[in-house]
Amino acid sequence: MGRSELRFQVEELYADYAACLDDGELERWPEFFTDDAVYKIMPRDNYERGLPLALVACESKGMLQDRVAALRHASVFAPRSLRHLVSSMRITPSGGSLIHVRANYAVLETRVDDETRISNAGRYIDQLVRVDGELKIKAKLCICDTVLLSGALIYPI
Amino acid sequence: MGRSELRFQVEELYADYAACLDDGELERWPEFFTDDAVYKIMPRDNYERGLPLALVACESKGMLQDRVAALRHASVFAPRSLRHLVSSMRITPSGGSLIHVRANYAVLETRVDDETRISNAGRYIDQLVRVDGELKIKAKLCICDTVLLSGALIYPI
Amino acid sequence: MGRSELRFQVEELYADYAACLDDGELERWPEFFTDDAVYKIMPRDNYERGLPLALVACESKGMLQDRVAALRHASVFAPRSLRHLVSSMRITPSGGSLIHVRANYAVLETRVDDETRISNAGRYIDQLVRVDGELKIKAKLCICDTVLLSGALIYPI
Repeated sequence: MGRSELRFQVEELYADYAACLDDGELERWPEFFTDDAVYKIMPRDNYERGLPLALVACESKGMLQDRVAALRHASVFAPRSLRHLVSSMRITPSGGSLIHVRANYAVLETRVDDETRISNAGRYIDQLVRVDGELKIKAKLCICDTVLLSGALIYPI
Repeated sequence: MGRSELRFQVEELYADYAACLDDGELERWPEFFTDDAVYKIMPRDNYERGLPLALVACESKGMLQDRVAALRHASVFAPRSLRHLVSSMRITPSGGSLIHVRANYAVLETRVDDETRISNAGRYIDQLVRVDGELKIKAKLCICDTVLLSGALIYPI
Repeated sequence: MGRSELRFQVEELYADYAACLDDGELERWPEFFTDDAVYKIMPRDNYERGLPLALVACESKGMLQDRVAALRHASVFAPRSLRHLVSSMRITPSGGSLIHVRANYAVLETRVDDETRISNAGRYIDQLVRVDGELKIKAKLCICDTVLLSGALIYPI
């Protein structure tokens, strides 16, 4: 497969991923991942100093599903609209079947009757693999530029 | 036509559309649309509840041209720079000649001697068709995450 | 070379450029440019009125390298994370070897223990050429929508 065809497929995946979260289709979110996927949200400072502390750390698709259930049952999450902007995607296929993807993201947030503000911005450091021909996320690291994430429960990024 | 060639053409169209609005070339704006085009700006809440109330509703290219004339003659619109960011584009050709496009957008706004802030963010839900080989917008729905749009007259999104 | 292949190469270049600045790899930044490159940051108002005054004006790769040295030795630049969002890219190859690129950008900024805000947004008006097969920036004009750029020393955009 050519590099521009791969880029096209990866862009479609990321657009669908953003739409899933922005449309609040949380139950569909774990389906983007492999069964053994790792998903973490870390502040930039911890990541760059090699500190392991993460704001969110899931180590299987089952843990992602548990997280969705927790978010669905939480009563402390005020209604808000989320809007992902993703750009500057860099795609690097490795020798094996792994595809490395880096991208910048910003999550905009709008609470009821309020203006739109930036919830957080940062970068994705991801690994994709093909499962039955389809691209799946094997590892997704969301490195936030801020440590101030609003909300008692952190929504997926 | 292959899907990656179609994606390329749609991305060019959206980049040109954003530049037209950001550069203030309002007279060129209706030319992106078909004669019978529908253009609406709706708050997310109304859209998701199926309420018909729109902040802006035009049902032909003529109405878009009227809107441009109104904006040009309005004295209440303070000078400001607009800047569109568009990402997470999803393109779905239908069986017929219709092409469905969804994308996330943010409009940044800078008033004279002020900082840049987010005017509004949301998603486009669009339908494109080909007219004489060229892609034109047949329907454009701008679903805003906020209901607080600044300015007495709403500028096209 | 087809237009979609060119678009792919230009997108990769801009993603790498953004990552270089966001990752703070300042020493790598001049390497994106030709030896005789022109790099300017100008407020929109000055640019549109044809006023020559620029916030930053470099007229060779050497001047870019000097600028990096100045930024590295400046003690007044408070630690912050930068995050570039780039979209709406328009690519126009000219008859010769020059490639014109226009894009919208936003630079988000996060200071330590603070929220993420918009530092500035605007557009790139660039010219690329090929040097030994590789795309290099021959001219880069960063037109800011705001005149209020924070920080005593302006970081590259």
